[in-house]
Amino acid sequence: MLIVKKFGGSSVANKERIFNVANRCIEEYRKGNKVVVVLSAMGDTTDDMIAMANDINPDAPKREMDMLLACGEQTSVSLMAMAMASLGVPAISLNAFQVSMHTTSKYSNARFKRIDTERISHELESGRIVIVTGFQGINKYDDITTLGRGGSDTTAVALAAALRADACEIYTDVEGVYTADPRVVPNAKKIKEITYDEMLELATLGAKVLHNRSVELAKKYGVQLVVRSSLNKAEGTVVKEVTKVESMLVSGVAVDKNAARIALIGLRNEPGIAFKVFDVLAKKNINVDVILQSIGRDDTKDISFTVDEDQAKEAVSVLKENQERLTIQKIIEEENVAKLSIVGAGMQSNAGVAAKMFEALYDVGVNIRMIATSEIRITVLINLEDVDLATKAVHDKFIED
Amino acid sequence: MLIVKKFGGSSVANKERIFNVANRCIEEYRKGNKVVVVLSAMGDTTDDMIAMANDINPDAPKREMDMLLACGEQTSVSLMAMAMASLGVPAISLNAFQVSMHTTSKYSNARFKRIDTERISHELESGRIVIVTGFQGINKYDDITTLGRGGSDTTAVALAAALRADACEIYTDVEGVYTADPRVVPNAKKIKEITYDEMLELATLGAKVLHNRSVELAKKYGVQLVVRSSLNKAEGTVVKEVTKVESMLVSGVAVDKNAARIALIGLRNEPGIAFKVFDVLAKKNINVDVILQSIGRDDTKDISFTVDEDQAKEAVSVLKENQERLTIQKIIEEENVAKLSIVGAGMQSNAGVAAKMFEALYDVGVNIRMIATSEIRITVLINLEDVDLATKAVHDKFIED
Repeated sequence: MLIVKKFGGSSVANKERIFNVANRCIEEYRKGNKVVVVLSAMGDTTDDMIAMANDINPDAPKREMDMLLACGEQTSVSLMAMAMASLGVPAISLNAFQVSMHTTSKYSNARFKRIDTERISHELESGRIVIVTGFQGINKYDDITTLGRGGSDTTAVALAAALRADACEIYTDVEGVYTADPRVVPNAKKIKEITYDEMLELATLGAKVLHNRSVELAKKYGVQLVVRSSLNKAEGTVVKEVTKVESMLVSGVAVDKNAARIALIGLRNEPGIAFKVFDVLAKKNINVDVILQSIGRDDTKDISFTVDEDQAKEAVSVLKENQERLTIQKIIEEENVAKLSIVGAGMQSNAGVAAKMFEALYDVGVNIRMIATSEIRITVLINLEDVDLATKAVHDKFIED
Repeated sequence: MLIVKKFGGSSVANKERIFNVANRCIEEYRKGNKVVVVLSAMGDTTDDMIAMANDINPDAPKREMDMLLACGEQTSVSLMAMAMASLGVPAISLNAFQVSMHTTSKYSNARFKRIDTERISHELESGRIVIVTGFQGINKYDDITTLGRGGSDTTAVALAAALRADACEIYTDVEGVYTADPRVVPNAKKIKEITYDEMLELATLGAKVLHNRSVELAKKYGVQLVVRSSLNKAEGTVVKEVTKVESMLVSGVAVDKNAARIALIGLRNEPGIAFKVFDVLAKKNINVDVILQSIGRDDTKDISFTVDEDQAKEAVSVLKENQERLTIQKIIEEENVAKLSIVGAGMQSNAGVAAKMFEALYDVGVNIRMIATSEIRITVLINLEDVDLATKAVHDKFIED
């Protein structure tokens, strides 16, 4: 068996944890398996580096930022190889150059194009555990790129696909994917199996267990993922195309507090205005979600939508620059909002799910500001202060029932 | 003009110093010159990394050590590029992979084989300052190698040779090469010009201003070096093939406290024994210096020699393993010794230099333990406690005369 194991930054934050990971990998290796390990940077290393860079240049070129950040993973993989060597197991660390992990050219947010397997296969054939830097790649200029936050998950999935691995295990500090955040909903349950699509909705919606791009990639190449704890041996959550267990109506409740609502008031009611608004935002790479359009008085209309909180300032600023052309009378920004979503493949064939969700919220007096739905998800925008109450109510209604 | 500038770790130890270096380089760039900057790792970064590695594996594989240490320079070059960008100057950082700095395969002590100039030239033509990681290379396996301590000097010289640079400036925290260590000899003078051979003897003998391999390389390719301060604009020391000024009899006094003396007593007096002794040491890469052989009683002989203090333990241990075969009756190791040397191209054509040195030492009552000479150098082994006194006496005799 060829197994790809990915460990996040907190799993390699210090000597003790590095040896813990080394031992778990060696256990797999001793069973006769080929083991590829993908690591993130140790603990808060990446944040520390970003702070150091910001101190020197708050607007540092992204190419140089990637050159800097790549050192984080290179440090953890070399230390891991040393740890394994001290335990008497042949291991070798490889960075993005050495593997040849080709990505698009976009610094700080690159995507994999092609991964060469020659070097890794050669090292595996030589009986070594291969430890690969997560999060990074090289582009056509031979420059270092990074994949954005959580990119190490994507590295693991991409490697598993390229190497046709038999398993891809994502180790984290929780035991798997839960029906809701256990800190908010104490009786949240670990999900045994979940489909790619459900996981994708949950990942996108702020259940930070898996990076959404890694789930997309896993779906595309049919890589079966297991999310499990690096601290114990509990069975984790399996993410795959079709789950064996009968689809739950709702498999999870996700919360995204990193949301801001922007309302544009009094736009001229003519064709193409909405397109122009979202085009202006798209050109700045601002992701828009939960859109609501309403006809106002006097042949005007209002458009409101949500953006990630950290893009809100930029969104407002670019809209203000274009305010006249877009015929916007007034721009309102509101940050004290959150998105609450229920996700479940079973939703597709079950009517009344939305009604049931709204009922749960009504029962605890939570006001719904906006609504958006996909085939397997319903999202509502609510006030930030209502989030915990609403999460519990919705979780009880669907999961505990 | 194409100028290569190398700055050591203390010159980029913090934000303020990084900007100081950035500004000096930009000054050169604004004059219309092409500027290539070679940097070491910031401050104590390399030592910190070594400590971190030792904590995990005191006998870490050298390949992994090089993989780890290379992050030090990659961090400094990327931060420097950010600093220059914030000052409005286009700059780009490149690591050993990106430049393609090919070395031999020997981890932790590699030597340059070939440096590709294509990428650097391209970036220079595009009007950028190019910032290159010192100290590191890649070998034929695409693995990272390092050049050993002080290797960034060698990187600068090798780049200057490959790029046919018009100047190669080594910036350090002293103003140049001195006739003796100014902390020991207060009236030590800065040397204006010095030949490669003299510098080589001084560098080898512990004047830590320049890495000796960098001087060898500069001599081989005729790269004229300037050693100067990163903190002020004082003229430094020029290192070249032939100095314009008439050769001083003695250009400098060097001290190496990192020496240990090993005495082998009572070896059988037969041909080949000395060869076997030094062969055993050479196979462990132990450098031997200042050798003295004397006939003892009963057809035996004694051999004593010096090694670097940090190799003394290993030397004694390998000699003990072979004690019987090498017919050694007794091995004595002594660490409280130092090497004191005078270096000068003028020595070749002047008799009596040695006598004058010995007289200076006799005048202050310093006992000479062993003597070694080359064409342009005389080295004596003395007791460690006598070093400062001896240095002053010899310096006064030759330089102040």
